[in-house]
Amino acid sequence: MSTESTRALGSQMICQVGLIVRDIERSSAAYADLFGVEVPEWSLTDAYESAHTEYRGQPSAARAKLAFFNLGQVSLELIEPVGAPSTWREFLETHGEGMHHIAFHIQGMEEQLTILADKGMLAVQRGDYTGGRYAYVDAVPQLGLILELLENL
Amino acid sequence: MSTESTRALGSQMICQVGLIVRDIERSSAAYADLFGVEVPEWSLTDAYESAHTEYRGQPSAARAKLAFFNLGQVSLELIEPVGAPSTWREFLETHGEGMHHIAFHIQGMEEQLTILADKGMLAVQRGDYTGGRYAYVDAVPQLGLILELLENL
Repeated sequence: MSTESTRALGSQMICQVGLIVRDIERSSAAYADLFGVEVPEWSLTDAYESAHTEYRGQPSAARAKLAFFNLGQVSLELIEPVGAPSTWREFLETHGEGMHHIAFHIQGMEEQLTILADKGMLAVQRGDYTGGRYAYVDAVPQLGLILELLENL
Repeated sequence: MSTESTRALGSQMICQVGLIVRDIERSSAAYADLFGVEVPEWSLTDAYESAHTEYRGQPSAARAKLAFFNLGQVSLELIEPVGAPSTWREFLETHGEGMHHIAFHIQGMEEQLTILADKGMLAVQRGDYTGGRYAYVDAVPQLGLILELLENL
């Protein structure tokens, strides 16, 4: 039992659904209209000097415009890719707009990434944000989607 | 204010993320391994006589195998299409495995569908389940995804 639990992701509480969009202002307005709420302000992710973005193991200058809607336990994150290369840009060019990832808050990023890597699910992008760090893990062959791990520090 | 709220979807509480899979048993095992939980039993949606499935306005014999994982407020629904035509089959053939919809519990299905139709978001599939009814609404051009409305009766 303990062996099994240590091999599992340390969370089942989904905290975010991430959606790639072409135009953050257009999509934010459409979701605000859907829910009957104010259009949220978008923010730009940090530049490399702060975000330390790595895409497939290499530093990347890619950024993104982000806007959030509160859906209860889950926030809906709208993401417009800015620059390249990134998992965001790759998704938009491959799939167009659509759901990109589901996210979980975890503790112990390196340990969690090792657990997932042992299942064949590899990190494709990593970086820092104010107050924490993230990793996107390509689990498309196994789970049909991308996982995002979020660790607040 | 009241005018605006009556034109909005009657819920912001996402209750489900739906994922199309090729093989319900393989995908259920992979998610059970990810979360360190038991593999859930899958169930088959009802036949037409009970489900009254309509796809693009026409009766459909399509069904699906379903399995669920509890992620807190949200359940992750795995869906393996069985038969055709359905939004599930269409998605699998067009996109392969991946996230298909986000769902909201609503009240007043016809009124909610009218509100969405006024925004250009049209129902593509409808049906009944034990205790309620559902509709999938194609909001891909506006929102980049499919919405599911669930109404327990």
